[in-house]
Amino acid sequence: MVRRGTQARAEIVAEAARIASIEGLEGLSLRTLARSLGRSKSGLFAHFDSKEALQLAVLQHTERVMTERVVRPALAEPRGLPRIRALFRLWGGWARDHLPGGCVFVNASTELDDKPGPVRDALVASQNTWRRTLRRAFEIAAEEGQLLPAADPEQLAFELYSLMLGSYLYARLLKDPKTVALARAGFERLLASASATPAV
Amino acid sequence: MVRRGTQARAEIVAEAARIASIEGLEGLSLRTLARSLGRSKSGLFAHFDSKEALQLAVLQHTERVMTERVVRPALAEPRGLPRIRALFRLWGGWARDHLPGGCVFVNASTELDDKPGPVRDALVASQNTWRRTLRRAFEIAAEEGQLLPAADPEQLAFELYSLMLGSYLYARLLKDPKTVALARAGFERLLASASATPAV
Repeated sequence: MVRRGTQARAEIVAEAARIASIEGLEGLSLRTLARSLGRSKSGLFAHFDSKEALQLAVLQHTERVMTERVVRPALAEPRGLPRIRALFRLWGGWARDHLPGGCVFVNASTELDDKPGPVRDALVASQNTWRRTLRRAFEIAAEEGQLLPAADPEQLAFELYSLMLGSYLYARLLKDPKTVALARAGFERLLASASATPAV
Repeated sequence: MVRRGTQARAEIVAEAARIASIEGLEGLSLRTLARSLGRSKSGLFAHFDSKEALQLAVLQHTERVMTERVVRPALAEPRGLPRIRALFRLWGGWARDHLPGGCVFVNASTELDDKPGPVRDALVASQNTWRRTLRRAFEIAAEEGQLLPAADPEQLAFELYSLMLGSYLYARLLKDPKTVALARAGFERLLASASATPAV
């Protein structure tokens, strides 16, 4: 019974994440979710007593899926630059293929920036975890002697994340067919500018 | 009478842009706008017969203000790198100070990417105008002999816009006090990597 309840909750959250990727976290309502699942709104209340609880569950779910699909496989790559390459490549696949409306985190970032509260706080915590993952990957590359002594992991993480956001806009809104080529060239230039050796 | 009508319309659109910067273009409704202006909803219908007409007017208004505050002053700078520096600096001020909820274009970009229709089309047209402005500025720098022969204006425009989006996220959502320093360092690295001479 507990297991059935857990499974039902997981199905609800997965559908909520799909809706949030298109409509945004604010556009997600218990009413539209109930309709989409063919359930009663009161049935959903057994799992989530508020829209905020549902939004928080969607963020937790999204972070878990992203860890499984992007961070964990990247950590299986060799330390340093190969791992950074994997993070960049896997993030692109994640943002493009995971959900029909794109990355819940990126979409929520412009949506919630002016909305103080627990949902915004959870989003900021997720984004900071992601930023630390990127920075740590560059720190490891520095420890491995792969970067120039002057290279700054925090700066490189900022620029890498910026390229990800730029390619997200070019791909999703502008549907520019050159997106992948532009993103790759920017990434290679970033690595080349910081690398101790010409190519890894 | 015509003039009074024009002025009333301009005031309505300016308030609508303020609301859209916080709530998003989709979160903007004739009802909330009427309440915020202390007008009747039917009074607004004399100016805008649909939410879509209002959203389009907000995009047109925002593009006009951005041209006045960012593009026109930048064009007053010398051709090439000084103009690119001005575009970067003025965009930062625009995104930070123009409206309480940040740039309507950036916010709408993740909001409307999955919503086909005339509002999305108008947003894409605006973004493409902005991309052309950035690319053209780099083309001029190349014509002036300020860039390396291999430098690609479209690539540089993509990377510059990516840095703008990264700094927007770091400033608005994450409130990282290092944002300005990170954005400037990224910008200088981008210019240095493409410049024919060490500093301009």
